[in-house]
Amino acid sequence: MKPEHTRVPAIQPLAHEGADCRAVASVLSRVGDKWSVLIIMLLIDGPRRFNELKRMVGGISQRMLTLTLRGLERDGLVTRTVFPTIPPRVDYELTDLGRGLAQPVKALGQWAFEHQPQIQGARDKFDERNDKD
Amino acid sequence: MKPEHTRVPAIQPLAHEGADCRAVASVLSRVGDKWSVLIIMLLIDGPRRFNELKRMVGGISQRMLTLTLRGLERDGLVTRTVFPTIPPRVDYELTDLGRGLAQPVKALGQWAFEHQPQIQGARDKFDERNDKD
Repeated sequence: MKPEHTRVPAIQPLAHEGADCRAVASVLSRVGDKWSVLIIMLLIDGPRRFNELKRMVGGISQRMLTLTLRGLERDGLVTRTVFPTIPPRVDYELTDLGRGLAQPVKALGQWAFEHQPQIQGARDKFDERNDKD
Repeated sequence: MKPEHTRVPAIQPLAHEGADCRAVASVLSRVGDKWSVLIIMLLIDGPRRFNELKRMVGGISQRMLTLTLRGLERDGLVTRTVFPTIPPRVDYELTDLGRGLAQPVKALGQWAFEHQPQIQGARDKFDERNDKD
């Protein structure tokens, strides 16, 4: 048996197929979903009711809002609190984890917003160049 | 005609259906793609050849790497330079725009990596709770 230190380490490809990378990819895919990002942004200022969110996010269907909130709740980013009033009131609020995620998401959203014209310009040029080929 | 200042502003839902929001959503969806994120991270340290990238990102197919690089090039995040050697050498490098995006993406990836156990824990609890219902 060879002593430990004589083993030649193989060049390791990035461990992106491991559990860590799958987990990171699943968080990134949440951030790739505009509805999730929009709702996280809306909850930064405090809890909101379902119907408030629906009104603020014009154009989202009841079903899509329910699904998005459920996904955020499952990830531990949002809590759902039901108040037994008539009719029942349902509040959604960022958890500490959700507030933590909101910071890098905000930075990214801001970058995307500020550089959107440059990206669009690059796309137009690229497409024009490739139409000519 | 009413003077400008007497108009009552309607409560505006977020303008997420406008061109700006579509553009931001398209940048976010790029960040939601793990291959794009991985390649941006690998290019932070300087230009790389196609085959180097392929080796570093173990498990990516030739076709998927080509498509991902093409998408990044189209967005103006990466440049592609062909050197007329035999065989031709093809280098990929982050543009200034790409280097700018790398910063918030890195912050987000780091957050995702660090908080992955908490998110996984939340998911397990959520699924357990909902299995009982």
